[in-house]
Amino acid sequence: MFAVGISGCDHDVMRIHIPVHRRWGDQDALGHINNVSLLKLLEEARVRAFWRDEGSAEDAPLAVLDADTVSTGAGLATLIARQEIEYLAPVPYAREPLDVQMWLGKIGGSSFEICYEVMGDGGTRYARATTVVVLVDTETGRPTRLPTDARTAWEPYAEEPISYRR
Amino acid sequence: MFAVGISGCDHDVMRIHIPVHRRWGDQDALGHINNVSLLKLLEEARVRAFWRDEGSAEDAPLAVLDADTVSTGAGLATLIARQEIEYLAPVPYAREPLDVQMWLGKIGGSSFEICYEVMGDGGTRYARATTVVVLVDTETGRPTRLPTDARTAWEPYAEEPISYRR
Amino acid sequence: MFAVGISGCDHDVMRIHIPVHRRWGDQDALGHINNVSLLKLLEEARVRAFWRDEGSAEDAPLAVLDADTVSTGAGLATLIARQEIEYLAPVPYAREPLDVQMWLGKIGGSSFEICYEVMGDGGTRYARATTVVVLVDTETGRPTRLPTDARTAWEPYAEEPISYRR
Amino acid sequence: MFAVGISGCDHDVMRIHIPVHRRWGDQDALGHINNVSLLKLLEEARVRAFWRDEGSAEDAPLAVLDADTVSTGAGLATLIARQEIEYLAPVPYAREPLDVQMWLGKIGGSSFEICYEVMGDGGTRYARATTVVVLVDTETGRPTRLPTDARTAWEPYAEEPISYRR
Repeated sequence: MFAVGISGCDHDVMRIHIPVHRRWGDQDALGHINNVSLLKLLEEARVRAFWRDEGSAEDAPLAVLDADTVSTGAGLATLIARQEIEYLAPVPYAREPLDVQMWLGKIGGSSFEICYEVMGDGGTRYARATTVVVLVDTETGRPTRLPTDARTAWEPYAEEPISYRR
Repeated sequence: MFAVGISGCDHDVMRIHIPVHRRWGDQDALGHINNVSLLKLLEEARVRAFWRDEGSAEDAPLAVLDADTVSTGAGLATLIARQEIEYLAPVPYAREPLDVQMWLGKIGGSSFEICYEVMGDGGTRYARATTVVVLVDTETGRPTRLPTDARTAWEPYAEEPISYRR
Repeated sequence: MFAVGISGCDHDVMRIHIPVHRRWGDQDALGHINNVSLLKLLEEARVRAFWRDEGSAEDAPLAVLDADTVSTGAGLATLIARQEIEYLAPVPYAREPLDVQMWLGKIGGSSFEICYEVMGDGGTRYARATTVVVLVDTETGRPTRLPTDARTAWEPYAEEPISYRR
Repeated sequence: MFAVGISGCDHDVMRIHIPVHRRWGDQDALGHINNVSLLKLLEEARVRAFWRDEGSAEDAPLAVLDADTVSTGAGLATLIARQEIEYLAPVPYAREPLDVQMWLGKIGGSSFEICYEVMGDGGTRYARATTVVVLVDTETGRPTRLPTDARTAWEPYAEEPISYRR
């Protein structure tokens, strides 16, 4: 379900690799995986990487967020504050999963930045993206400090954020 | 990617089993996999079972439809004529794929009926469904006879159609 | 937002008409509104026809289900038990809403059957469909009797269910 | 279908306003319009604002892209190169359309930047976003110059790009 690897461009970076399956139905009328659907695939990768899997004894190394907490709204919730994505090549439908690689671009007081690279078969880099997630206290509705176990789990995966061409 | 098994209720039935991954985003505001999203999962299972995989040397036993033909509209196209689905239990999000089991309920002159049972972890039967697919000549827009290789490939998987409670 | 009309084929039928907008993104790689997306449009029509609109003083004549109840699970919930759809013509993307016409095919003890005809510009009939909805007590998880106000509101719209060609 | 208005915060800006309907099914398990679904709504607004409507005599002032060209791939295609979105408040499901306001942040040689503000009932600003679209020659696969009629149509709507908090 997940793999941790040392990989990188200029220097070594700890990344988590989550395989995510495309669907034929993710394509739009242009015959490629739709640009919005690609963000749906990143959402799935993010859930699998960062949220605890209650059905599993084995936890992913970054998975410290509690899915129950998030969905019931008891205490803590995660909100998406910002997203950015750069599309580098059209993504065809294929039956093999995409290799969604993730690391942390920045770990703030009450927010964290997830960086993604979406890789395909044969090493094609399809997209690079960033999501900023804020942790919120559901009673007050205000940002709340990231728990210590999250910091501890995530710091080994903290690296340079993506610098986009603009 | 696929598995062929002898399985069944009253008697032995040849079925193809396609694992299809749920996504967190398939859930709706009620916190279960949405009833429409479930049909999206069946679409993916159907494509993987019945359409040739150009990226693979190994073809699934039922995969005789040509994806290129279908998407370019050159010569033959498949149209969905009818669908029916019975929901037997709410489907939770989980990271394991659903086991979508398929067989052929009826092979007609220019159409065929795909039957599905959607099974989860621990043997829960989530849904039963039927899709009627018609083969159409893209020049005339009229139904055209199923090719012989399709009949030959599918006949071992032909069994009783699903009888729904109504 | 809605219109009530006397319309019909062989005889007069009371139907509710809900305009529902297509999206360019509802198309699949074949360049038509995807067969599963069409059920998403029916879901939207159903919500607008049968659920109370808290943001509005004016209620649709069939809208007696309480959205809050449904989403919070307090007391009553509606579950989709069965769906059936017959596709009569490919649906193109267009900016005008589809005219989703609805009536009740059957009103049972704890369930009801919604019938749909999906009409386009110029009178094209794109699809016919049926959804069976069951009312469930969220504490016991068991079907519960339809409330009297629902019966009263819906009976004028009760007509023959759709008989499908099979 | 569209409205052109002088509206703005600090100074007057020409914007096009496209009403886009939410769907109940755009919600995720957290009970709000999903962050990815919101980009689907922006896609719909973009298509309605910038692509010609063949079914209509009246063209929107920015609608100079030819939908046929884009979908058949004959000659010119538009590719999404980059997207950025800032979520300012959770978007509830409601039956009224969102007011998606658009203008051009930058008009380059072969690309253009669409800026969006997503406004709700009562003036809530839900999100701000940017999409960079590149025009590509489908034969060579390379970026190609924006046609003159596009520049002429778009220049009155060219304004400051969005500066995001980061």
